[in-house]
Amino acid sequence: MFNSIAVLGLGLIGGSIASAVLQKGVAQRVIGYDPFAGERALALHLVSELAHSPQEAVQEADLVVFAVPPSKTIALIETCWPHVKSQALLTDAASTKGAISDYALAHQLKHFVPAHPIAGSERSGPEAAQPKLLNGAKVVLCPLSINSAEVVDKVGQFWSALGARLQLMHAEEHDRTYALVSHLPHWVAFALAHCLSSQGDADQLRQLSGAGLKDTTRIAASSAALWADISQQNKKELLDAIADFQGSMTALQQALETDNIPALESLMQQAKAWRESF
Amino acid sequence: MFNSIAVLGLGLIGGSIASAVLQKGVAQRVIGYDPFAGERALALHLVSELAHSPQEAVQEADLVVFAVPPSKTIALIETCWPHVKSQALLTDAASTKGAISDYALAHQLKHFVPAHPIAGSERSGPEAAQPKLLNGAKVVLCPLSINSAEVVDKVGQFWSALGARLQLMHAEEHDRTYALVSHLPHWVAFALAHCLSSQGDADQLRQLSGAGLKDTTRIAASSAALWADISQQNKKELLDAIADFQGSMTALQQALETDNIPALESLMQQAKAWRESF
Repeated sequence: MFNSIAVLGLGLIGGSIASAVLQKGVAQRVIGYDPFAGERALALHLVSELAHSPQEAVQEADLVVFAVPPSKTIALIETCWPHVKSQALLTDAASTKGAISDYALAHQLKHFVPAHPIAGSERSGPEAAQPKLLNGAKVVLCPLSINSAEVVDKVGQFWSALGARLQLMHAEEHDRTYALVSHLPHWVAFALAHCLSSQGDADQLRQLSGAGLKDTTRIAASSAALWADISQQNKKELLDAIADFQGSMTALQQALETDNIPALESLMQQAKAWRESF
Repeated sequence: MFNSIAVLGLGLIGGSIASAVLQKGVAQRVIGYDPFAGERALALHLVSELAHSPQEAVQEADLVVFAVPPSKTIALIETCWPHVKSQALLTDAASTKGAISDYALAHQLKHFVPAHPIAGSERSGPEAAQPKLLNGAKVVLCPLSINSAEVVDKVGQFWSALGARLQLMHAEEHDRTYALVSHLPHWVAFALAHCLSSQGDADQLRQLSGAGLKDTTRIAASSAALWADISQQNKKELLDAIADFQGSMTALQQALETDNIPALESLMQQAKAWRESF
């Protein structure tokens, strides 16, 4: 499908993309670059070769994947852009899409199609990467008004070849949606784990807990650096989502404080009905 | 171990206890009583026989297990108490222990040892019951000052025979602990699912979500009636736990609002470190 693909950033997501490309034969060469995790990714055979700089990684690539935290993506595109082949396609894997899309529009990056694979794990780094991570996962594509249909189609084919199911969405809609369905749940899990970890008997509490606490806080084991970064990049939408969550929490709390148990049960029932249809 | 055990309440927990008693041969007869789920429990072979009233269920039993929601437990004990054999042992499975212990002390129920199996599922009813639910699960025993060592030992042996690991705790400590490790996570899951379900595009949001939201809200599919009941029964401790959670959420929120990303990362890192040691 491609001769050569460059993957910049070889953590959980970049490493999984790179290894899926190799395993599925989407390209013969996968040139990786990651100043921290590069050597480990090569040792794990996630990439076929390593470049010494982002510029070197992209110069022969037919398709470039940027798989670094949202706040680093724009700077990395800026660094690489003068060195990519004129017909090369570009895509990314960042969890927020607004700022990146605005940048790409302002700089007329017609071959760049912003993307967000809805896949992950509370683990991080190349050791957590696996080619099957994207198998059956949704990938949200946020095509730009300056992308040609052909460019969108080709980048979509790339993600599909990794096993992903495509979903098209405007960048603004993406950022509101994922503030609610992904960023907010991470915040809730971090806040719950923070609350428990701040108790004097935090170790004992962990030992006395059951499956409920374990599942509810699983994603609080995710990378703090990445999630602080995602939160900053989607600040406005995330703060709106948090305010909505606090509204729900306050409604439950008021029902309990006033001993209005039928109201409490009815709020819980609405939540249950929605969750049961998963 | 026993000739005959009565289990009052044949939902997820009572049904699982009853079927484990039969499967492990802890008693030959398991007499069940549940005005709603009784027939289904008998059809599922969770009990060996059904009684027509709680009084009838307990009159020949060597051990009685009360497995109804916390707010119903005291009234059910009151109903049954005059009909139990003089040497019969009593235990329960309610998620809150303070009020039940106070009642048992006030009424000198020397053969009653309050218990709380730390096992469950977001599913409910006898159809969700399974004998292995208690296998390897913790059961918190909250012995009363009026219990003899022999009574505590025998009731402990009963729970151990079902595969449970015993943990002794004072009722007050139990209620604070489980407000934090169980009731609060349920509230957070209910509030998060309520928040998402209140959005105009709630159905689409569910379809666009990934594993994070799914795990974080799993226990929001639990019985709303049961959890409204548990919340009311542990109101004071739960409201304290919610206030602690809100403190953690506010700390994260303030860090984001003031763009103090190092502070945000550090709060998330504390949560992550605690969760990783699970």
